[in-house]
Amino acid sequence: MMAVGSSGSPTHWRRKRVREPCKKLVFYFHDIIYNGHNSKNATSAIVGSPAWGNRTILAGQNHFGDLVVFDDPITLDNNLHSAAVGRAQGFYIYDKKEIFTAWLGFSFVFNSTEHKGSINFAGADPLMNKTRDISVIGGTGDFFMTRGVATLSTDAFEGEVYFRLRADINLFECW
Amino acid sequence: MMAVGSSGSPTHWRRKRVREPCKKLVFYFHDIIYNGHNSKNATSAIVGSPAWGNRTILAGQNHFGDLVVFDDPITLDNNLHSAAVGRAQGFYIYDKKEIFTAWLGFSFVFNSTEHKGSINFAGADPLMNKTRDISVIGGTGDFFMTRGVATLSTDAFEGEVYFRLRADINLFECW
Amino acid sequence: MMAVGSSGSPTHWRRKRVREPCKKLVFYFHDIIYNGHNSKNATSAIVGSPAWGNRTILAGQNHFGDLVVFDDPITLDNNLHSAAVGRAQGFYIYDKKEIFTAWLGFSFVFNSTEHKGSINFAGADPLMNKTRDISVIGGTGDFFMTRGVATLSTDAFEGEVYFRLRADINLFECW
Repeated sequence: MMAVGSSGSPTHWRRKRVREPCKKLVFYFHDIIYNGHNSKNATSAIVGSPAWGNRTILAGQNHFGDLVVFDDPITLDNNLHSAAVGRAQGFYIYDKKEIFTAWLGFSFVFNSTEHKGSINFAGADPLMNKTRDISVIGGTGDFFMTRGVATLSTDAFEGEVYFRLRADINLFECW
Repeated sequence: MMAVGSSGSPTHWRRKRVREPCKKLVFYFHDIIYNGHNSKNATSAIVGSPAWGNRTILAGQNHFGDLVVFDDPITLDNNLHSAAVGRAQGFYIYDKKEIFTAWLGFSFVFNSTEHKGSINFAGADPLMNKTRDISVIGGTGDFFMTRGVATLSTDAFEGEVYFRLRADINLFECW
Repeated sequence: MMAVGSSGSPTHWRRKRVREPCKKLVFYFHDIIYNGHNSKNATSAIVGSPAWGNRTILAGQNHFGDLVVFDDPITLDNNLHSAAVGRAQGFYIYDKKEIFTAWLGFSFVFNSTEHKGSINFAGADPLMNKTRDISVIGGTGDFFMTRGVATLSTDAFEGEVYFRLRADINLFECW
């Protein structure tokens, strides 16, 4: 809500805005980490690690320092084998020794009849929490200049190889 | 365009905004990747790689997993030897096995009579496309609080060592 | 300030906005880099380095190419031993050969009675400058959708192991 001067002209827009999303989207993405034995199926790989780690096995101390690059399929439902509607591309870095936590920088890249363009994300992912919020920091194409918040949740995982994330994307700036 | 209530006061700004840039800028930047033989001229270097790669030669599978840090000169024209007007500083990560694609996080840093301050970028760069859009996620100094979209195109390249990028920056939020 | 049409309705918001912060915050954070001998106290570690470097000692050429992951305590004053009010989590990459400069991507993560939520940052940090500005690119929780500028300054350092940063956060978009 903007402040409006007595002359009827808005003076600035420091005030509260409406917290109702202008667009809501839900997707799943599927991360299969390379572990030395799954090069065919892997969608991600460790590319940086601390001095005490390596790039094939996630490091001790809750993987602190492991940097993982990913190109994960995005699906509309929680089935890894559903048709991919886009790709989740970017990286995460495990960044805490005492518990699993990561910092994420990535994009959802779409090139389908449904969506063309990208949504860019960044933020902290305390991944042991049932849900956690990261920022939508921008977008292109159908998502030109968008901003918002994405709520991530771990929908499923198998050992330390397969992770399925659900992303509830709520956009609050739509152009 | 904002919704305006019958009282004449704007109620919120969920609606479409003007898509005309408040500022347009065009720059070139020049990336010379360290390959073991060009330490004097190199402006970037591989600092992370997958288990099957190393930090001197870009990895197979379309360089998937290679993390490159750069400090590239920015020029006003497409000549590497023109006076630099700033530096492009940050990183990219090749993030797809089947084709060249990268994720970028970087800044244009200016400290000249023309421009002082920085423009910050993030996004997916499907670099085989003639043009690709990334997000301007913020700025400082002359570019305080800016947002927008930058269209990148590969203006030239030589082998896997020299890449010249053109950046058409369109800012849609200027303070 | 928005342009207002003769009809009294705002036409768009391309024009200058008020540069007065809607929120001001000051914090300190404390980075203790792992150096092979301080695994108990270290809050950060080198996880990527150029071909000529390693992950225990910061590389020559002003650490160019070193990627550091951190999970640093945030305090209200400049005392490392004060109670932490949150964690600064993310990474920095030294990205220039001739002088110390880094690119930062990180979050302040709060979970106290005072603040719940996160503030996300990105930008270039020419760390030899007394002060340098980076972008607040988004936020969650108490900092939902925020944007702004953070001014960093090096409050103290000891050798190449301990760095204390002061962050003056000025938010210009508050929801």
